[in-house]
Amino acid sequence: MGKAPPVSPLAPAQFPDLPVIDGVRFATIEAGVRYQGRTDVMLAQLDPGTSIAGVFTRSATRAAPVLDCQAKLGGASDQGAAILVNSGNANAFTGKGGVEAVEHIAQAVADTCAVPTARVFTSSTGVIGEPLNHQRITEVIATLESTLSPDGIAAAAQAIMTTDTFPKGASAQVEIAGKTVSISGIAKGSGMIAPDMATMLVYIFTDAIVDQTALQKMVSAANAVTFNCITVDSDTSTSDSLIVAATGASGVDASTDDAFRDALHSVMLDLAHQVVRDGEGATKFVEIAVTGAATATDAKTHAMAIANSPLIKTAIAGEDPNWGRVVMAIGKSGAAADRDLLTIRFGDVEVAKDGWQHPDYSEAAAAAHMKGENILIRVDLGLGRGAATVWTCDLTHGYIEINADYRS
Amino acid sequence: MGKAPPVSPLAPAQFPDLPVIDGVRFATIEAGVRYQGRTDVMLAQLDPGTSIAGVFTRSATRAAPVLDCQAKLGGASDQGAAILVNSGNANAFTGKGGVEAVEHIAQAVADTCAVPTARVFTSSTGVIGEPLNHQRITEVIATLESTLSPDGIAAAAQAIMTTDTFPKGASAQVEIAGKTVSISGIAKGSGMIAPDMATMLVYIFTDAIVDQTALQKMVSAANAVTFNCITVDSDTSTSDSLIVAATGASGVDASTDDAFRDALHSVMLDLAHQVVRDGEGATKFVEIAVTGAATATDAKTHAMAIANSPLIKTAIAGEDPNWGRVVMAIGKSGAAADRDLLTIRFGDVEVAKDGWQHPDYSEAAAAAHMKGENILIRVDLGLGRGAATVWTCDLTHGYIEINADYRS
Repeated sequence: MGKAPPVSPLAPAQFPDLPVIDGVRFATIEAGVRYQGRTDVMLAQLDPGTSIAGVFTRSATRAAPVLDCQAKLGGASDQGAAILVNSGNANAFTGKGGVEAVEHIAQAVADTCAVPTARVFTSSTGVIGEPLNHQRITEVIATLESTLSPDGIAAAAQAIMTTDTFPKGASAQVEIAGKTVSISGIAKGSGMIAPDMATMLVYIFTDAIVDQTALQKMVSAANAVTFNCITVDSDTSTSDSLIVAATGASGVDASTDDAFRDALHSVMLDLAHQVVRDGEGATKFVEIAVTGAATATDAKTHAMAIANSPLIKTAIAGEDPNWGRVVMAIGKSGAAADRDLLTIRFGDVEVAKDGWQHPDYSEAAAAAHMKGENILIRVDLGLGRGAATVWTCDLTHGYIEINADYRS
Repeated sequence: MGKAPPVSPLAPAQFPDLPVIDGVRFATIEAGVRYQGRTDVMLAQLDPGTSIAGVFTRSATRAAPVLDCQAKLGGASDQGAAILVNSGNANAFTGKGGVEAVEHIAQAVADTCAVPTARVFTSSTGVIGEPLNHQRITEVIATLESTLSPDGIAAAAQAIMTTDTFPKGASAQVEIAGKTVSISGIAKGSGMIAPDMATMLVYIFTDAIVDQTALQKMVSAANAVTFNCITVDSDTSTSDSLIVAATGASGVDASTDDAFRDALHSVMLDLAHQVVRDGEGATKFVEIAVTGAATATDAKTHAMAIANSPLIKTAIAGEDPNWGRVVMAIGKSGAAADRDLLTIRFGDVEVAKDGWQHPDYSEAAAAAHMKGENILIRVDLGLGRGAATVWTCDLTHGYIEINADYRS
């Protein structure tokens, strides 16, 4: 790991006070999988009746626990379930040994927590390609089970961190038919962030009743405009997993409730933004809003080309309103664009219009916007109604420092 | 520009001694387009009978001079021609003023050099989005014309540089029917390098006779496996242009000569490698050879995913044989891959096989390879016969330093 980097300057002031979700309990422990002197395994046990939905990486080299989770999704919800996560080792590209490690861990959790192995979801995050010593995990599961607690979610957010500089949590509460339903979620992620589906590791819990089909539909739709719209470095993890569990303990059915769907979306967006705010080496939080594209897909292609351009990300780090590089990224993206119909704004500063610098462009005003912590780049293609918004961070010396010797 | 960075540690020991190409003469001058105290405009005049082929960026926001060159390609070869290049300003995203600047410059060159405007090819490279003061160029053309010299190509290589830390030149000579034919070329490029067609600015001259159709075919084919197979930072310039001029002054027809085609390919590959060796901040030259892919397109997709991964490029900078990140890049690329059929080698060190670390893997041997200046990453997909080789450099603090304040 090298020495721990300082906490991101974009981190929230503190970890939020997440509402307790009835029907789920958490425990964490120092198992020494790779790290020393910190927790690295977390167990969440879910009561019978919990619906579980998920979205996972589409990487062709995805890790053994991801494949195992995907096979188990959609299982019966009238039984209990458990989620076990370790940090420090991704159990990815670990061959048959990796598959066996998942089986050993799932079996141990099933035996100890009295749930079927088909309802044990595991995740591993950390170094790729090194064998996972699963015994370090299986031998602590009884201790974990004996310390499960309804208010352990903040500790769980700590235990799943790798290069993260702060734990990530978000919550929402909605009133449905006079009753309160709560949603609490945690996430980890900092580098290797360009989700092609879900992202890094994200666990969200709610006490609402939501049937599995409805839950999966809500999660997939919200994922498309939250986790799938962030990028730190254009690199996609082999382990990206998002799991949402609805325990139903509130007794309130939210399967078709719009306010609940919006609340779930807001929790997912909050966590996605926190992942960007903890982007390796990040000093700026950047929103890129593209409108007027021929299609929504084109809008996202342009937005991601801007968000992933090393030249734009370094210009943002240098507080340089280098809008010529935005023109470059649009040009290279492959999606439809007409140079002479483009308009570009940095914050509220009109930068480019009609194929050239805006007549009222003020470099001083644009430079002032770039000095802020939150950067907004707006592009209108002038071609149609396609729109997309994505979020990223700048590219700094910190990113190089963190990644030039992650393993040593 | 900020302060000039030191010469790349990967630079050749010296600029090569390029053979004089009969039928072309060069001149350079300090026109003060943007830079002070260095040459920034070069003129090449070509004798009547010269064939000209070219490849240009496919960027949707390509610059005015690129559009002008594309419109002029394929013109009659029984007239003289001229190439005029300025550095410091790309004349890209400069609206109607940019188009007019190209017209003014081409007209001035045509008048002074007595060639048709349809045979004047111009390029501009530098900052995007700022108006080009074309008068600074038109007013020096008479002086340029009066100082044209057959041996001015080394000075021309200097005049077209922007963030380059060394001028780039390459040459080849072949015997055809007992006579010697020569090829000499120059290039500039260091950042915004992920050619989607040609790259940066490249000018190659030969005294062979090659008819325009044959020359264009040779150039396009060689371009696909040279300039189109390099990347520094995944960003594609708005100004990429490759122009090859065959003056025919040797009296030797090479239109169908295999040795000539191979020689042209070798000159293009040499220049492409020099662009990578001058990659902004580069300290390692990296070759990525992918074999066993389902198709050649898939092979290139995998190779470019590896070459453009910030995590792999930073690991190389840190001399870390982090092969897990290679697995990640293959997984995210979108091209076909089977995790359990992959083999990966760093240099001659077998790293991964059958979905896991190779049983004989030596981290010490892999680490020793990473300490060298030339890094070789070999991947076999085990799926088919598709192959591709691409070249890149590492991602270092130097890249951030250069690009966080290019304009200031």
